[in-house]
Amino acid sequence: MPTQEELIPLSGWRRKLYIIIFEADTRSGRLFDLALIVSIILSLLTVILESVASIRQQWGPQLKILDWLFTILFTLEYLLRLACVHKPLRYARSFFGVVDLLSILPLYLGLFIPESRFLADIRVLRLLRMFRILKLTRYMGEARELKRAMLASRRKIIVFLGTVVLLVIILGTLMYVIEGEANGFTSIPVGIYWAIVTLTTVGFGDITPKTPLGQALASLVMITGYGIIAVPTGIVTAEIARGASATPTDKQSATRLCPHCFSEGHDWDARFCKHCGGTLPRPARGEVS
Amino acid sequence: MPTQEELIPLSGWRRKLYIIIFEADTRSGRLFDLALIVSIILSLLTVILESVASIRQQWGPQLKILDWLFTILFTLEYLLRLACVHKPLRYARSFFGVVDLLSILPLYLGLFIPESRFLADIRVLRLLRMFRILKLTRYMGEARELKRAMLASRRKIIVFLGTVVLLVIILGTLMYVIEGEANGFTSIPVGIYWAIVTLTTVGFGDITPKTPLGQALASLVMITGYGIIAVPTGIVTAEIARGASATPTDKQSATRLCPHCFSEGHDWDARFCKHCGGTLPRPARGEVS
Amino acid sequence: MPTQEELIPLSGWRRKLYIIIFEADTRSGRLFDLALIVSIILSLLTVILESVASIRQQWGPQLKILDWLFTILFTLEYLLRLACVHKPLRYARSFFGVVDLLSILPLYLGLFIPESRFLADIRVLRLLRMFRILKLTRYMGEARELKRAMLASRRKIIVFLGTVVLLVIILGTLMYVIEGEANGFTSIPVGIYWAIVTLTTVGFGDITPKTPLGQALASLVMITGYGIIAVPTGIVTAEIARGASATPTDKQSATRLCPHCFSEGHDWDARFCKHCGGTLPRPARGEVS
Amino acid sequence: MPTQEELIPLSGWRRKLYIIIFEADTRSGRLFDLALIVSIILSLLTVILESVASIRQQWGPQLKILDWLFTILFTLEYLLRLACVHKPLRYARSFFGVVDLLSILPLYLGLFIPESRFLADIRVLRLLRMFRILKLTRYMGEARELKRAMLASRRKIIVFLGTVVLLVIILGTLMYVIEGEANGFTSIPVGIYWAIVTLTTVGFGDITPKTPLGQALASLVMITGYGIIAVPTGIVTAEIARGASATPTDKQSATRLCPHCFSEGHDWDARFCKHCGGTLPRPARGEVS
Repeated sequence: MPTQEELIPLSGWRRKLYIIIFEADTRSGRLFDLALIVSIILSLLTVILESVASIRQQWGPQLKILDWLFTILFTLEYLLRLACVHKPLRYARSFFGVVDLLSILPLYLGLFIPESRFLADIRVLRLLRMFRILKLTRYMGEARELKRAMLASRRKIIVFLGTVVLLVIILGTLMYVIEGEANGFTSIPVGIYWAIVTLTTVGFGDITPKTPLGQALASLVMITGYGIIAVPTGIVTAEIARGASATPTDKQSATRLCPHCFSEGHDWDARFCKHCGGTLPRPARGEVS
Repeated sequence: MPTQEELIPLSGWRRKLYIIIFEADTRSGRLFDLALIVSIILSLLTVILESVASIRQQWGPQLKILDWLFTILFTLEYLLRLACVHKPLRYARSFFGVVDLLSILPLYLGLFIPESRFLADIRVLRLLRMFRILKLTRYMGEARELKRAMLASRRKIIVFLGTVVLLVIILGTLMYVIEGEANGFTSIPVGIYWAIVTLTTVGFGDITPKTPLGQALASLVMITGYGIIAVPTGIVTAEIARGASATPTDKQSATRLCPHCFSEGHDWDARFCKHCGGTLPRPARGEVS
Repeated sequence: MPTQEELIPLSGWRRKLYIIIFEADTRSGRLFDLALIVSIILSLLTVILESVASIRQQWGPQLKILDWLFTILFTLEYLLRLACVHKPLRYARSFFGVVDLLSILPLYLGLFIPESRFLADIRVLRLLRMFRILKLTRYMGEARELKRAMLASRRKIIVFLGTVVLLVIILGTLMYVIEGEANGFTSIPVGIYWAIVTLTTVGFGDITPKTPLGQALASLVMITGYGIIAVPTGIVTAEIARGASATPTDKQSATRLCPHCFSEGHDWDARFCKHCGGTLPRPARGEVS
Repeated sequence: MPTQEELIPLSGWRRKLYIIIFEADTRSGRLFDLALIVSIILSLLTVILESVASIRQQWGPQLKILDWLFTILFTLEYLLRLACVHKPLRYARSFFGVVDLLSILPLYLGLFIPESRFLADIRVLRLLRMFRILKLTRYMGEARELKRAMLASRRKIIVFLGTVVLLVIILGTLMYVIEGEANGFTSIPVGIYWAIVTLTTVGFGDITPKTPLGQALASLVMITGYGIIAVPTGIVTAEIARGASATPTDKQSATRLCPHCFSEGHDWDARFCKHCGGTLPRPARGEVS
């Protein structure tokens, strides 16, 4: 994702437009952002309501007009964004650039493939901007913390998912062979689908084992899967807990500094530097909590 | 919630009534509370039994009379509560004030909208008073601990729920477009409902994907949702674990004090102050457990 | 549960019988235990197979005879156990005494209420003795550890379950009022049953919301319940983690003893007693792992 | 599993073949491994596609030929593997040796029992070799870490599963007695299957309680099972968290050694030995992370 600085044009109307559209510190910038959020939510509602048959029958034409209005509005906004940034291609390839484009494409595509126009509500992703706009910096911190925990445990999760995929292919095949097409397990892919539904404890019940052997294997799958479910939870929990406990310790070592040898990492109740023996200044009592 | 002190009237019959109704330390106060709990539970049973068709047919009139008796009783109690507190409006706007009002409204409302009278069993919330009445202080402590853990992780949970809402809207739309109205996905809201049922691993099975592409996407949803489920558990667990480990450490550092330099934070088995070398008084052995 | 010592008779044939039946250290005692486990498992199989219609039609009489044989055997054993202990009533009221009695009652009761004879497989609980017999002491330790974690968090779990019960009554009533008897929510108890099925993410799908408002409320229930599910996991995990980290520390302090002042609780790598300054004997390196 | 060294033949064509087939460091070895992975995946697709009725009708003969081609290829490979190792029997009894054999057997078996040929996709297990081949050593480390956590908690999990099995037998019997064969609980094994489906929160909904007493017991099962689900998660999480926190500590104590008294276990920022007072060599800063 490009940094803001590289995208800002140096001067002129493009700079003014840039500050209104991309920044949120001026009055007009904030008004623009508010108007944007409101129109995203309204356009979302339009798409969702249009999909309900009873509402479509009564309000179909009106909703279609609204739909087109919002799409034209967002198309204009997209073009303006492209026009006012310093390097349009960098914006177009950034996360929000792609989302902005995907938000307007479905309706144009809908002229050729009618059903695809409902995909327009991928524009819900544009609401992610809200975090930045509403200055929810504390939430950003928490989101970063969660993201960090997920990233740190990504390798464990990939190993785990790989094991699940192997397991699911074998179990799906076994159930297909045991239960057969007469009991709903019409092919190996369907068996794999059933194994995923069962291992994740979702349990739709659209396909269920009927033979005693099948039910015995299913019981085994459920109890095994039960133990397996514990693993991702364990991975993520351990990572979040590590993050939580790491923060205060880091603070301790970061806030206390020996004025004699400039070493760090002293316990919060140490009076003398453990490296040179010099006296440490007392920290404020409330500092660590 | 207003503090008890502000609500107590200074003298007279209102003070006497206040002590009976709001406090639980006198004999009459305890009797009142006991009678209240018994009548709340009996009135709950009345409402619940009335909703069962076979019982209603046989005991309908008797249950209706009981229902009215309890409502009139609770109305009287509500009025007495209003009468005996110093600042009635503060009580009326407090959590229990609102619950007390909501407990008697449904039956009166039921005169106009018959079905709504069953909402009377919102009075189950009045049982929360039981904690205070039965002096379950240890349980109060645990409840406060759980509440603290939930509050401390509220921001992480909101970020997480926000992500789930975005995900569910996109997945619901995709399934609506892929499966279509013929397979039960009659509108985007229904698709979103299905996505929630699947992501939370509830899996009712009232709506299930029929097309291979839909089943493939559903499999992806379930496995993804699986990893995602780990997150709230991880958040709450890390928070509870942090609370649990914080308590004993605090006690240690709080209960031992050097009488020479008044420093704190000594290990429970230390004999000499680690800061000035003075002798520490021995703590009772059982103190830390 | 009475201690073994109090139950042992002092001498004579009762003492011999006691050692065979209750203890597992002699050859005859071990043979008796093995025969017992085998006959418990065989009698379990008899009861389970008898419940399968197709097997009952073909082998009904034979299974019934086996059933009676095992029950008479276990009755004899129960009488012998009563005869050879010092204080028969104490045994009869102990956990295994009650289980032993419950294991033989159903078949006698089955003479009057036929269906109840299947309850005979409560004798599966007798297999808990296996832990003691097979000298699975390490497993006993782990079981005690799990039990301790559950007990230590029982108050948090009761607070949590209390909250769930309140929630489930209110949600069940709301769904009953919203969906009505036409959509399967035939009474408030059924609504409560549905709320439990949904909150615990079991999701049978035998009763599902049909109205949009009901589906919206159900979505809310699932997402809320989702956050709530994290709580018991968090409680138990934190408790087990606390136990896990506590155990090695205890071992450390228990295995090292100052030979001069007999104080305990020294770090595993300490060379001098922190209480009296005397030299500590070096521990074996592999001791702590 | 035999070590690589014992399997390597000393010289000749067998050694050359060995290096191509078993090792992955030479160019030809890497090519062989790549070709192997591609053909495993293709043969898997063949088996899976063949099970889909509509595809089988159109491409049946072609898929069958492909199936036989892959099996003959894998049979040849298996024979070559046997030929080029030093101790063929040791390879044949190793994990991958058994998997390699199981990958080719089903099709030959399919000549006698047609259905069994689909079991050929057990060859998915051969993909586990990929980890070694692609030099995914970091992933291997994470996999070992997960395996260690699972092994370390295996005794707790066995105790837990034992409890679940006892519980499930008793609950299944109770439901069979309460609900009876008319409501779908046709035998005790079916009742046990239902209890497993419910306790693991899978909830297919193919068998559900119909009587009020059955629904009440089911509610109890779900809420109890709810608390029980927390246990395996707690066990695994605590173990992973312990592993996560143990690793850096172990490294610290293992990597720093006092050159004067050869003692270990020094903090990473200590400058002097805490046992003899000698100067410690400084560790590289980035070492601990």
